[in-house]
Amino acid sequence: MSTSDPSVNNTTPTTSSSANLQAIHEQLTVIGKKARAASRAMAKATSQQKNLALLQMGMAIRLQTPLLKEVNLRDIERAKLAGQDAAFIDRLTLSDKAINGMIEGLEQIAALQDPIGEVLNHRSRPTGIDISQMRVPLGVIGIIYESRPNVTIDAAALCIKSGNATILRGGSEAIESNTALAKIIQDCLKRAGLPEDGVQVIETTDRAAVGEMITMTEYIDVIVPRGGKSLIARLMQDARVPMIKHLDGICHTYVDAEADMSKAITVCDNAKTQRYSPCNAMETLLVHAKIAPRIMAPLCKIYQDKGVELRVDRKTKGVLAQAGFDGMSALVDATEEDWTTEYLAPILSIKVVENLDEAIDHINHYGSHHTDAIMTENTITADRFLKEVDSASVMLNASTRFADGFEYGLGAEIGISNDKLHARGPVGLEGLTSLKYIVKGNGSIRG
Amino acid sequence: MSTSDPSVNNTTPTTSSSANLQAIHEQLTVIGKKARAASRAMAKATSQQKNLALLQMGMAIRLQTPLLKEVNLRDIERAKLAGQDAAFIDRLTLSDKAINGMIEGLEQIAALQDPIGEVLNHRSRPTGIDISQMRVPLGVIGIIYESRPNVTIDAAALCIKSGNATILRGGSEAIESNTALAKIIQDCLKRAGLPEDGVQVIETTDRAAVGEMITMTEYIDVIVPRGGKSLIARLMQDARVPMIKHLDGICHTYVDAEADMSKAITVCDNAKTQRYSPCNAMETLLVHAKIAPRIMAPLCKIYQDKGVELRVDRKTKGVLAQAGFDGMSALVDATEEDWTTEYLAPILSIKVVENLDEAIDHINHYGSHHTDAIMTENTITADRFLKEVDSASVMLNASTRFADGFEYGLGAEIGISNDKLHARGPVGLEGLTSLKYIVKGNGSIRG
Repeated sequence: MSTSDPSVNNTTPTTSSSANLQAIHEQLTVIGKKARAASRAMAKATSQQKNLALLQMGMAIRLQTPLLKEVNLRDIERAKLAGQDAAFIDRLTLSDKAINGMIEGLEQIAALQDPIGEVLNHRSRPTGIDISQMRVPLGVIGIIYESRPNVTIDAAALCIKSGNATILRGGSEAIESNTALAKIIQDCLKRAGLPEDGVQVIETTDRAAVGEMITMTEYIDVIVPRGGKSLIARLMQDARVPMIKHLDGICHTYVDAEADMSKAITVCDNAKTQRYSPCNAMETLLVHAKIAPRIMAPLCKIYQDKGVELRVDRKTKGVLAQAGFDGMSALVDATEEDWTTEYLAPILSIKVVENLDEAIDHINHYGSHHTDAIMTENTITADRFLKEVDSASVMLNASTRFADGFEYGLGAEIGISNDKLHARGPVGLEGLTSLKYIVKGNGSIRG
Repeated sequence: MSTSDPSVNNTTPTTSSSANLQAIHEQLTVIGKKARAASRAMAKATSQQKNLALLQMGMAIRLQTPLLKEVNLRDIERAKLAGQDAAFIDRLTLSDKAINGMIEGLEQIAALQDPIGEVLNHRSRPTGIDISQMRVPLGVIGIIYESRPNVTIDAAALCIKSGNATILRGGSEAIESNTALAKIIQDCLKRAGLPEDGVQVIETTDRAAVGEMITMTEYIDVIVPRGGKSLIARLMQDARVPMIKHLDGICHTYVDAEADMSKAITVCDNAKTQRYSPCNAMETLLVHAKIAPRIMAPLCKIYQDKGVELRVDRKTKGVLAQAGFDGMSALVDATEEDWTTEYLAPILSIKVVENLDEAIDHINHYGSHHTDAIMTENTITADRFLKEVDSASVMLNASTRFADGFEYGLGAEIGISNDKLHARGPVGLEGLTSLKYIVKGNGSIRG
């Protein structure tokens, strides 16, 4: 799950002097060249080698836990001195839970099927040639992330398994933890007969290194940014390297006139309140005018009981007043801005719509094309919604919170993409690969 | 086939005054908004509607041939006055052959299976949700091309069939022909119940319009540039909208020690000489040192007899001298630059390599990752080449000239991509689509 990370606004980057830029350019070029060279060996690695590296990483993390915690403590102390808040420190901390999570992740990724080398779409052509496609790594993946050091392991593991070389650039606050984890990764790559440069961590904390990375089209094939909206927005402005990313998740649930009341209440509750910070949490609820008089009051009571602030349009307010709703005084009038806001918080905007078309138009216009759901028992209505809503994931009678690589059965997730090119929606190992055409002839020539 | 078009260097663009830029920005924004709106209707279009539009376009072109030729003549006369050469005029001319080609293309594309709405990769998850993926259009496709007016029809047809809206920007020399063809397209879209704005032609000849198009990320989802290397290179510098493109095709054939002599000669001849200008023609021949003494002389004789200039490395020269080759005096010494040059002409660079690794390294280092072939009867050698050469198409015992959407059975081709993200290699209708996740539950919530 790509959870949005507000730390970006708290980071205190070291800003580079212009005299320093050339040094960083040179440093990154060296890293880029090493990564490109290593990517050839990573692409050729056997499944056994890759899995061995992953399992060794897990064992090394287990063995070196005390050392890792000691190093991590230094990052934490620095962050505390810099006045970072508790949530920030929490993300930065390599707790037992975080460490066990890394080890389990490594074991899970080792257990996944190797995507590389798979041959598909075979066909014979009348000209005598045989065509197929082979799954191959993308080459070099750049990962830009913030304060969570466990991303170092999670992201590296996915890139190793998919036969890619990786360049990791974590937040400056986690630099000591990341460097220690990188050391483990490189040792284990070496032990598995793979190049140490298969995974490199950028050790400079100068933010100019990020600017350099996102324009290194010669050495990096794709960048996966993992972090909050402002990080992504900043990168999008200047990136020349393609990115697998999403900017935000303004997810909707539309409760149709023919929704099952009980399912709709359960799902709408879960989509908003199961967790507030993930990008797949519902931010706007749309309710058909016909069902609003019945469903609006019980649903809004649930939200208010859980402390969710409700920002409602005029019609919703009317419906609730009509129903003698208790919490009228706590309602907030929704503004135009609410329809385009990703709260990532216990806040929900609500709007009554007159029909399916209005719901679809609202979602396509105001949404972020991430994940949107309809609650209905009418299959014709459902089909129209699923077809016409232009989002990476469209759902019927299910919580938007399911939009996740593990939930979709991808086995792992490097991120979620809202873009239509290449990978769309939750992105697993396959999104870190490409297909090349294999053409076999027997002295075949074109006439 | 994406044939490289040298016209780019001959074009005489109208350069915009800076006062004019704002007007073009506004004009393009209007076009972009119309395209975005039309894309919703195009995405919903039935196969029948789309095919009707395509077939009507064919009929209209047939009926209006005299008119089209008249309009085209005005473009041609202007080009002649501007001093364009015969090859340029040839590309610009709507000959009977070009017109029949457009009509046949329309019929072929109408006959292809509609990719939109296809549901694939269905799976049920233990949480009770069903996951599948649905093929959907990308949205709005921008096509930037040069002097061939038939691209207007070919590209529009592929975009219509794949449910996309299209913005076309042809060369200023073909503006009258393109505008007339656009009129036909829009009439036929309307007659099929589809929005006229489903296909728009930019009528300003100001080159600033191209600069605007390639940065309109809000209104254009992908740009397909069709033209010569200098056009693509220029667009790559400034584009913010993703592109489906290739810069050049430096295609290799490697003749292995264990190649079949007769097959190798036939295929190497075809790959170079069947046509010189396509991007999939061979530009560099690599020959294993063991087979060079036998194959080099007969092969080079064929090339020289066909007027191909041979640029050879020292070892090739030695082998040919040893063999008493007749055409020694016509050989040219290859320079470092030759290994990275796409000639698109009767010129071939030749190098002797000591082994498979040297061949693979040479191709990965100097090539353009377009199409590369090996000639060998050894399946282990073949497998290593096919796996390790990092190109969009890798071939065994076949001519590189096969790298083409029709030859691969895609039914049509919008272009060839050398990029690894999204579509790679020849790109047909599928490359103009995306997959969205469809999630079906029954009141399913995340625990």
